[in-house]
Amino acid sequence: EQCCDRPKNTNVRISLPAVCFVWQIAMIILFGIFIRYNEESDTHWIEHKTSNNISSNIENDFYFRYPSFQDVHVMIFVGFGFLMTFLKRYSFGAVGFNFLIAGFGLQWALLMQGWFHSLDPMDGKIKIGVESMINADFCVASCLIAYGAVLGKVSPVQLMVMTLFGVTLYAVEEYIILSLIHARDAGGSMVIHTFGAYYGLSISWMLYRPNLDQSKHRIGSVYHSDVFAMIGTLFLWMFWPSFNSAISDHGDGQHRAAINTYLSLAATVLTSIAISSLSQKTGKLDMVHIQNATLAGGVAVGTAAEFMLMPYGSLIVGFCCGIISTLGYIYITPFMEKYLKIHDTCGIHNLHAMPGVIGGIVGAITAAAASKDVYGTEGLANTFDFMGKWKDMMPTQQGGHQAAGLCVALCFGIGGGIIVGCILRLPIWGDAPDNSCFDDDIYWEGSVCFCHPCHLKNSVSLILSRPTWNGQYQYLAISLSPVQ
Amino acid sequence: EQCCDRPKNTNVRISLPAVCFVWQIAMIILFGIFIRYNEESDTHWIEHKTSNNISSNIENDFYFRYPSFQDVHVMIFVGFGFLMTFLKRYSFGAVGFNFLIAGFGLQWALLMQGWFHSLDPMDGKIKIGVESMINADFCVASCLIAYGAVLGKVSPVQLMVMTLFGVTLYAVEEYIILSLIHARDAGGSMVIHTFGAYYGLSISWMLYRPNLDQSKHRIGSVYHSDVFAMIGTLFLWMFWPSFNSAISDHGDGQHRAAINTYLSLAATVLTSIAISSLSQKTGKLDMVHIQNATLAGGVAVGTAAEFMLMPYGSLIVGFCCGIISTLGYIYITPFMEKYLKIHDTCGIHNLHAMPGVIGGIVGAITAAAASKDVYGTEGLANTFDFMGKWKDMMPTQQGGHQAAGLCVALCFGIGGGIIVGCILRLPIWGDAPDNSCFDDDIYWEGSVCFCHPCHLKNSVSLILSRPTWNGQYQYLAISLSPVQ
Amino acid sequence: EQCCDRPKNTNVRISLPAVCFVWQIAMIILFGIFIRYNEESDTHWIEHKTSNNISSNIENDFYFRYPSFQDVHVMIFVGFGFLMTFLKRYSFGAVGFNFLIAGFGLQWALLMQGWFHSLDPMDGKIKIGVESMINADFCVASCLIAYGAVLGKVSPVQLMVMTLFGVTLYAVEEYIILSLIHARDAGGSMVIHTFGAYYGLSISWMLYRPNLDQSKHRIGSVYHSDVFAMIGTLFLWMFWPSFNSAISDHGDGQHRAAINTYLSLAATVLTSIAISSLSQKTGKLDMVHIQNATLAGGVAVGTAAEFMLMPYGSLIVGFCCGIISTLGYIYITPFMEKYLKIHDTCGIHNLHAMPGVIGGIVGAITAAAASKDVYGTEGLANTFDFMGKWKDMMPTQQGGHQAAGLCVALCFGIGGGIIVGCILRLPIWGDAPDNSCFDDDIYWEGSVCFCHPCHLKNSVSLILSRPTWNGQYQYLAISLSPVQ
Repeated sequence: EQCCDRPKNTNVRISLPAVCFVWQIAMIILFGIFIRYNEESDTHWIEHKTSNNISSNIENDFYFRYPSFQDVHVMIFVGFGFLMTFLKRYSFGAVGFNFLIAGFGLQWALLMQGWFHSLDPMDGKIKIGVESMINADFCVASCLIAYGAVLGKVSPVQLMVMTLFGVTLYAVEEYIILSLIHARDAGGSMVIHTFGAYYGLSISWMLYRPNLDQSKHRIGSVYHSDVFAMIGTLFLWMFWPSFNSAISDHGDGQHRAAINTYLSLAATVLTSIAISSLSQKTGKLDMVHIQNATLAGGVAVGTAAEFMLMPYGSLIVGFCCGIISTLGYIYITPFMEKYLKIHDTCGIHNLHAMPGVIGGIVGAITAAAASKDVYGTEGLANTFDFMGKWKDMMPTQQGGHQAAGLCVALCFGIGGGIIVGCILRLPIWGDAPDNSCFDDDIYWEGSVCFCHPCHLKNSVSLILSRPTWNGQYQYLAISLSPVQ
Repeated sequence: EQCCDRPKNTNVRISLPAVCFVWQIAMIILFGIFIRYNEESDTHWIEHKTSNNISSNIENDFYFRYPSFQDVHVMIFVGFGFLMTFLKRYSFGAVGFNFLIAGFGLQWALLMQGWFHSLDPMDGKIKIGVESMINADFCVASCLIAYGAVLGKVSPVQLMVMTLFGVTLYAVEEYIILSLIHARDAGGSMVIHTFGAYYGLSISWMLYRPNLDQSKHRIGSVYHSDVFAMIGTLFLWMFWPSFNSAISDHGDGQHRAAINTYLSLAATVLTSIAISSLSQKTGKLDMVHIQNATLAGGVAVGTAAEFMLMPYGSLIVGFCCGIISTLGYIYITPFMEKYLKIHDTCGIHNLHAMPGVIGGIVGAITAAAASKDVYGTEGLANTFDFMGKWKDMMPTQQGGHQAAGLCVALCFGIGGGIIVGCILRLPIWGDAPDNSCFDDDIYWEGSVCFCHPCHLKNSVSLILSRPTWNGQYQYLAISLSPVQ
Repeated sequence: EQCCDRPKNTNVRISLPAVCFVWQIAMIILFGIFIRYNEESDTHWIEHKTSNNISSNIENDFYFRYPSFQDVHVMIFVGFGFLMTFLKRYSFGAVGFNFLIAGFGLQWALLMQGWFHSLDPMDGKIKIGVESMINADFCVASCLIAYGAVLGKVSPVQLMVMTLFGVTLYAVEEYIILSLIHARDAGGSMVIHTFGAYYGLSISWMLYRPNLDQSKHRIGSVYHSDVFAMIGTLFLWMFWPSFNSAISDHGDGQHRAAINTYLSLAATVLTSIAISSLSQKTGKLDMVHIQNATLAGGVAVGTAAEFMLMPYGSLIVGFCCGIISTLGYIYITPFMEKYLKIHDTCGIHNLHAMPGVIGGIVGAITAAAASKDVYGTEGLANTFDFMGKWKDMMPTQQGGHQAAGLCVALCFGIGGGIIVGCILRLPIWGDAPDNSCFDDDIYWEGSVCFCHPCHLKNSVSLILSRPTWNGQYQYLAISLSPVQ
């Protein structure tokens, strides 16, 4: 577009506060109209308990799900936030804008998901509890995945717009996949990862910058930024069993989902490291692979985590995904950038898109192969929720529905991303020029760092100064310091 | 004082070990005399279960509260510890002294709070369990808040003295507010935050250093120290729902407190970022605001978290506090330093004092406005604990009691801080001279860091050396390195 | 050995991927043959519930142990991983190889421990659940402790071999100690820490490098690497109560273990800091002590955590271990290196070996001193599991069995370490030469870091360039930057 070649104005002093205030006030109004506590978080719980013959407070859903919720919460804010700090000059943007997106997204998600899933027909209110908070965090995860593709190339205002539409699309596709199609997706391989990744990749494709190589010297990492990113990696890795089990069935459902995820991730670590080592002439490992590909097993086991995937099945899924994801970083990401004009800063195609699709397929196959022998009669009905209008459904049919769900997620991701990408191309959002991408200086005050003062400790410096043409002084500092 | 102008002796080799040993030995003796397991952590639990007709081990309070306890524990040690690492040369002091204060404080808190709250009249022993550990961590939080005001300006021995008195004062004011006045304060807006912040600010006022500008070049942050501080911020932010719900009522109480806090904090993120952006000419964000002001909503919703504040009420509280707290960093902190002679290193006035007072007021209003319509008869009695001698209390009265509680917290904070500040002015504590504040070199061995060795990689250096008068060698290194 | 003097080949491009693939495929096959879900994570849970008269899903072991499992999981990956990042140039190796060892080790541990502990005689399958995952993490912990002794001196292939044998030995000694000898060891003072530490120290002794001083300039830390290490320290410290209570008895057992550990660790902080300060001429603190010795109390209270150690007893244990561990860092580690030829990079002798042995002794004494007065009749039988064939056992006997367990752990650690050390001396594993130890460049791509670009900000550089023989350009950059 012509418009994109004009000099960029990165001043967001009007637009960012305006968006924040308007949307936050809208949230307050909509929450006032629509959102109430559900019967487990309301003071009437004590009466609800009596009338439903619940013997103990520990039966409150809070105690089944709150520990998992907190783990998911850590994944969203520390996991995704720190995973993206690997860039040498974009750590503030990674962790700070992640915080902004998530803080806004979860409110909007509570509303959107509430309208579709927990609207009380009696009074027209949305009733929220701990499961709503987990679902809101899940929804936000899909937007944070999308952020990974455009990291460093968009303004915070663009991110807010992207989140607004992302959450909206998510709520609709989730409703179609889980409620209309009756697919199961405990860990969100389709609903969260496939959707989120293709949404982000499509946006990145629409926002392609032909001259991005003007900023390419800032795309690498430095030693400490890689260690920061490992904080994100590890918190995602460790808490993924909670992610996949957070909203699965009480009892064996949560238990099994945690075990499957734990095993799949363990296998992924070994194959990621193996392929990473193979890819270098002298067998050295690449931090990018360790930071990202080791997580692919958690994504790919998301849908099937609550099924009887069997421990060895989980290992196989993790095994394959570690290989595919690492190969993706080595071959597919450069290919996509060069030939498809999709620049994917964090490599979400390898970490979320491919493993998400694999997860959807694994889920469909596992569901189709389910039998009463393995699951037990009650277990089968329970696990796949063959109740109410779905009570006569067969596992093979369920497999087809799972596959249909995957297609819906793909369509929403790609279609939604293209539309939102168009909107984000408007020259009003304050994004950075091509030579200032991946640089915190654009949106963060005081991120210019001088030489760390400790570097000057115990040294004597000879400093020569002279005035320059523009009235400032130039200094020549020669430091005299003990060599280590 | 005259005494303060003498050259400072920062040698704590006698005083610090002496204080640690004497106090730890005192703790062992007092624990030996007073502290025992309560019936839920004692081996007699199995008999207690039978005699109280408890059907399952899961009814043990441990399973209601332990996950929240661990989250609170992370907030105390990682949250507060890392939040204060933002200074370029005081990260060791931040996280290390935080560790020391908390390690000592929690033991003393178990004793002090035990004497007031859980002394068994049968045998004169204090009976502890998981709730005691949470309360001890809460008590320590108030001292760590106070540490934020004096960060970098006091010695570890002063911190130990400050903690000893802080915990003592805390236990007394907590007893007055919660037991005598019968105010409710689940998340401690008054008891923890208001008290702790004014305690710290008063001490900082008493210890005012007119010549602190000799150290002002060390008050800033560097790039990586800001990222470290974000670790603290995020763990505080994420686990605040656990903080506010940790000791509220089983069942709906904990559930509702978590939801309210979750929502309030989300709103705070947006308004903090909005104001931060507005405050800069080009709309850039300031890391100080993101690190601190985003947490204000958790503080302010502390008292009312377990009430029927309603989801939109929580958002409104968070909305306002994000604005007020960020404005505090922009206008009030410099004002206090210049005109009131209160130097507040971490800006606890904006993060804890103002939001704490707001939280107390919100709590009073919410309590006064409570009705049987909204809460239900049993719910009202339960939530406000209108039982025993308080069974005829009205919500409006309760509102008055809440307000009285806030005043007590303020008085104890300010009064206690002034007295303890006087004690800390004695010239015996080994604090740093004005030109060595905010510097780890005073109390930490080997914190002088040389140029990171990686900086010399891939470079060729010309090194000139000559012997110096004291027999060592001086080096002149001129590095030849590829420009990135 | 002659072989060790030949120039080292650190290329692991064949060996590392080969080991990863072969072992991961072996895991998949063995899991396929042996591992199944247990009755609490299987879809037949719903029938199991009915037939065992279990009233609620919350009685599933998942809800008793999963929060503790996640805390333990964090200790394994973030705790151990980051604790070892303190070296200035080995942070990738610390956190990355920790990840590799743990990812492999937990799979092998599930198998090995399963064969000994949870083989279902009906169908010859190992049935796993949440407790199996905790036990697998525990087992891995012993290998990570051993890694601490050889950190920076071994190749990833050696680590894999060390883990394979370590897990195998662990499973056998655990079976002997817990099942055959009937010792109790909830927190693994003997089984995990004593075994793991002596295993690692023996290996380090076998792999002694006389010329390691060629790498000694890389053994220190830099400012930020010490802050990273504090992340590890704090997550270990905070979650240790979960570690020691994770597999203890439901109800009072878990509750008491958490309290004892919480108290012991608090006392350790004070005495570690006291001794650290005493050890320096001006009372400065040493980060190494704060990072490590503060954890000794958690190790030493491991065995006795579930006993009626009493709160003051826990404090005494912590008090002593803080002193001993810190003195170990000051005196014993240099002594061992100089006279015993054991180089212990992380000082695991002070953090795990000595406190582990103390923990075993404390456990034996506490067990021998147990009485029905203190424990109650049922409580005594419950706590020490005096049931089945052990139902006539006396506490004094149990004390003897505890002591016997400690001896077994020591023998397996030392004996196993010597044998495995012999294997690791073979010149085929790709370990680093003596002058390249503690350096990430050997095994990590792109860990060479240039001068952080921010250091060049706001500076004007005089850059002289000239073409070199290979067609590239050399630059001489003299930076002209404002001095702070």
